[in-house]
Amino acid sequence: MSVKDDVLQIARAAKAASLGLSRLDTGKKNAALLKMADGLVAASAYLKEENRKDLEAAGKKGLQKAMIERLTLSDKAIDTMAAGLREVAALPDPVGEVTRMWKRPNGLMVGRMRIPIGVIGIIYESRPNVTADAAGLCLKSGNAVILRGGSEAINSNTAIARILNESCEAAGVPGRAIQVIPTTDREAVLEMLKLEEYIDLIIPRGGEGLIRFVVENSKIPVIKHYKGVCHVFVDESADIGMAERIAFNAKVQRPGVCNSMETLLVHKGIAEKFLPGMYEKYKSAGVELRGCEMTLRILKDIKAASVEDWSAEYLDLILAVKVVDSMDEAIDHISRYGSLHTESIVTKDYANSQRFLREVNSSTVLVNASTRFSDGFQLGLGAEIGISTTKIHAFGPMGLEELTTQKFIIYGEGQVRE
Amino acid sequence: MSVKDDVLQIARAAKAASLGLSRLDTGKKNAALLKMADGLVAASAYLKEENRKDLEAAGKKGLQKAMIERLTLSDKAIDTMAAGLREVAALPDPVGEVTRMWKRPNGLMVGRMRIPIGVIGIIYESRPNVTADAAGLCLKSGNAVILRGGSEAINSNTAIARILNESCEAAGVPGRAIQVIPTTDREAVLEMLKLEEYIDLIIPRGGEGLIRFVVENSKIPVIKHYKGVCHVFVDESADIGMAERIAFNAKVQRPGVCNSMETLLVHKGIAEKFLPGMYEKYKSAGVELRGCEMTLRILKDIKAASVEDWSAEYLDLILAVKVVDSMDEAIDHISRYGSLHTESIVTKDYANSQRFLREVNSSTVLVNASTRFSDGFQLGLGAEIGISTTKIHAFGPMGLEELTTQKFIIYGEGQVRE
Repeated sequence: MSVKDDVLQIARAAKAASLGLSRLDTGKKNAALLKMADGLVAASAYLKEENRKDLEAAGKKGLQKAMIERLTLSDKAIDTMAAGLREVAALPDPVGEVTRMWKRPNGLMVGRMRIPIGVIGIIYESRPNVTADAAGLCLKSGNAVILRGGSEAINSNTAIARILNESCEAAGVPGRAIQVIPTTDREAVLEMLKLEEYIDLIIPRGGEGLIRFVVENSKIPVIKHYKGVCHVFVDESADIGMAERIAFNAKVQRPGVCNSMETLLVHKGIAEKFLPGMYEKYKSAGVELRGCEMTLRILKDIKAASVEDWSAEYLDLILAVKVVDSMDEAIDHISRYGSLHTESIVTKDYANSQRFLREVNSSTVLVNASTRFSDGFQLGLGAEIGISTTKIHAFGPMGLEELTTQKFIIYGEGQVRE
Repeated sequence: MSVKDDVLQIARAAKAASLGLSRLDTGKKNAALLKMADGLVAASAYLKEENRKDLEAAGKKGLQKAMIERLTLSDKAIDTMAAGLREVAALPDPVGEVTRMWKRPNGLMVGRMRIPIGVIGIIYESRPNVTADAAGLCLKSGNAVILRGGSEAINSNTAIARILNESCEAAGVPGRAIQVIPTTDREAVLEMLKLEEYIDLIIPRGGEGLIRFVVENSKIPVIKHYKGVCHVFVDESADIGMAERIAFNAKVQRPGVCNSMETLLVHKGIAEKFLPGMYEKYKSAGVELRGCEMTLRILKDIKAASVEDWSAEYLDLILAVKVVDSMDEAIDHISRYGSLHTESIVTKDYANSQRFLREVNSSTVLVNASTRFSDGFQLGLGAEIGISTTKIHAFGPMGLEELTTQKFIIYGEGQVRE
């Protein structure tokens, strides 16, 4: 059978499964999630064996050490996947929730009820744990899922999906609720992205190249973020100690992730008091600074920032620093160079805090807290399927609720239109 | 300048305008809406003159009478546009609403605040009133709008937009908040649909052909519905009088719109009691019935339905009728042939009403009420920019809230991640 037929068959099966999934009661879904967790742990020898095939291929291809680490299914990695599934089982079921209900003058009671989206396609790179995480979240929210991982993890992903499926079936969940595209052929992705009749939403997770490829080629709605160029703005009135803690944490605590800070904006009225001490802290953590002209006047021995630095997502211990004349300039800079991801202001001024929250239209805007909180778990969503900077459907970290849509439900007593 | 450059310039101007619009206070937006309403009425001679050019061209092209009626800007049509803008001014402003706020264990207060989507492109056919309606809703929700009407209404649409813009400027709203693509060239639509960097959302309104063309060619998220194949299911326990009123209203009250019923499903246990009387009512209203085999046994002199009838959107006084063995069969039929638009059950049975509401995942599901209520005004949204059967972002009638997205806002006291 051709790749095209394969993908079509998978998509049709997913659509058929999604009907049953949308009606599954919470108890059954939770039982399946727990069985999936137990199944992964019980099958760890098999999973590691399949993973070894991927690791050997990666070794031959000369993949970077960091990539190989992310690809490795250790006992600990398997336990973490299982724990993730158990946590999803413990979360409230979003399906069936009536978020609002109101009465019309003619007596109709109108409400909005959460239902699954239907079939979700996840296209991702490298980490095999996404297979279990995404499958668990889609199952809990009543969606069928089609998983397409990177070619470097094909054996691991297929093995994980096999265990998840067997566990689902043992728990009475419709077959083919969770499917993996079983080929590494890129044509399969292109075929998948055409099937708007069967697939309702595509969530790509990975590097900017992968995401742009998906957006470019999809007929199906895509929810994504390209990158995170996050800012911290230290306002003139900031508490210096708090600003230091936040600016340090946002850059250093985990520099390789999308919600870490990439550009630090400092009000000119506090720059001379704040920057020298901050610089010492960054220096001791190995952070390289690249400053604007004003910054260079205060911190003599750092590099000058070029215009590319203002939109750079370093994902590393590098930080662009700019001194601004005013909060207006800070907000303009963010709207010009930012990525709509996450921005934070450090301030003691009430009016400035309110204005920053109101006028900065990134997906997460914080006052006096680290950008690193822009994360589904940290914000209390219970889980995270991804982060959106798309503005359509979801904006910011996406949890189980963002895997649902809301239909109108209406209770009448025989009303007709005049 | 080429069409491509024209469209690019319009899109860039819209993006620039959207920043100012998102910060505009409610009073200013409402003042602009009222000025727009007054402006249209004051300019009615000019509008009718420009409209006459379109009507003459339509006459030469031999457009259908119904099309010409929809194209005509009479004094009444102009008053209706103005009244629509005044109604939008009276609606609550969705921008800035905090829909929820919760506290995290670490003390962070996390909330979700409505913000405009940004730049919205509306692609529509025929009725020039859409120009004013869509512009009003986009302005109230803080979005810039790019309007692309049908070629048959180009003079009318351009004239309306000109008046709206002059009124906006007089009220201090940023210039180019409302723009019309000034060419009838189809290339302009194709160019527009590529500009995902500047345009955040496309809403097409018109026939299925136009909508499929837009979906096929857009890189920008599209919210749409192709058609409305709406069902009424008369359950075994239905009150016959109520079922007759609802089935009659859903078909006859305004057959040419998407929320009118196209297929009537009748439980076999009530078919012989219900169908003959219903048939007489339909006959007196000129409704042509097309029945399944069972229906033909009860109503001898009607046409047989073919398989195409089950998915037909007649938009006319024609109705497909099917007798079903059970509610399961009714739900299966809807999920197989329906368009996810609107379905209604007529029943006295509590369990069946609940099951229908839960298991039918169309965008609007009613118990004991006409499908004709699936409409933004009727459901209390105050206005309607369109109807979505896309499941992503909005599902069902879309009002002002659906023209916003929600960002996360977070109040901290210096929190950092461990």
